[in-house]
Amino acid sequence: MSSSPSQSAEDYLERIHELIEEKGYARVVDIASSLKVKQASVTSMVQKLGELGYLKYEKYRGLILTDKGREVACKIQNRHETLSRFFSLFGLDAETQKQDIEGIEHHLSPETVEMLADLAQFFEDDPQMLRMFRQFRSAAKRKAG
Amino acid sequence: MSSSPSQSAEDYLERIHELIEEKGYARVVDIASSLKVKQASVTSMVQKLGELGYLKYEKYRGLILTDKGREVACKIQNRHETLSRFFSLFGLDAETQKQDIEGIEHHLSPETVEMLADLAQFFEDDPQMLRMFRQFRSAAKRKAG
Ligand SMILES: [Mn+2]
Ligand SMILES: [Mn+2]
Repeated sequence: MSSSPSQSAEDYLERIHELIEEKGYARVVDIASSLKVKQASVTSMVQKLGELGYLKYEKYRGLILTDKGREVACKIQNRHETLSRFFSLFGLDAETQKQDIEGIEHHLSPETVEMLADLAQFFEDDPQMLRMFRQFRSAAKRKAG
Repeated sequence: MSSSPSQSAEDYLERIHELIEEKGYARVVDIASSLKVKQASVTSMVQKLGELGYLKYEKYRGLILTDKGREVACKIQNRHETLSRFFSLFGLDAETQKQDIEGIEHHLSPETVEMLADLAQFFEDDPQMLRMFRQFRSAAKRKAG
């Protein structure tokens, strides 16, 4: 975890940001239950993220993201958003989509994410193209099985 | 690691299969150096994979994959192949591509891999379409900056 946060740190920042957006605050107990980890793990990661300048603890308000933390969290959120846009074009079921995205999002280079964003845009801009691809898929499936 | 192997077990099976294909044998020391892990970790994973029926140790030949192990290794290899086909269409540099694939391959559902295979096929079958997408990307980049 040097200049950019580790993959697991990214998960924490993403979730803390979401909790603050949803509820106005991020409690250790909520972070733990949402990431399915122990509260002790949350406490130790929160401390690390604090030392790295991504978040701080304020009396009365609780955990808040610093500007630096919010910037990283927004990038993570945008990336998740891009992957959702891309995957949602192709008729995968919602649960599969969610699991795949959570699995891969921290392993993709910015270049690949940008390419997937462009692919999503390409098909979104041209519904005719998307229909052609869907027909291509159905035809391929009929041939295969 | 119940019916299907864990993500890290998949890495081992993939690499052992590759080593056997390349050199005719897979030694603990080669597996360790290729996966950048300690020999002790290899020994313990090899034992686990043996207990699960994916590989066995034969005198004189060394480690070999069982039929079950070879089947899983082939599936992993095919998935890697699909991802390579998909990514190689879009002009990412080879090292980025490799790292992204190694990062995500064990986190993708069969449905998503199939969708990416179909996308690759769609563009491979119609070079005109691929040119259109490349032009779309260049235009998007010019607009963005
Ligand atoms: Mn996410
Ligand atoms: Mn691989």
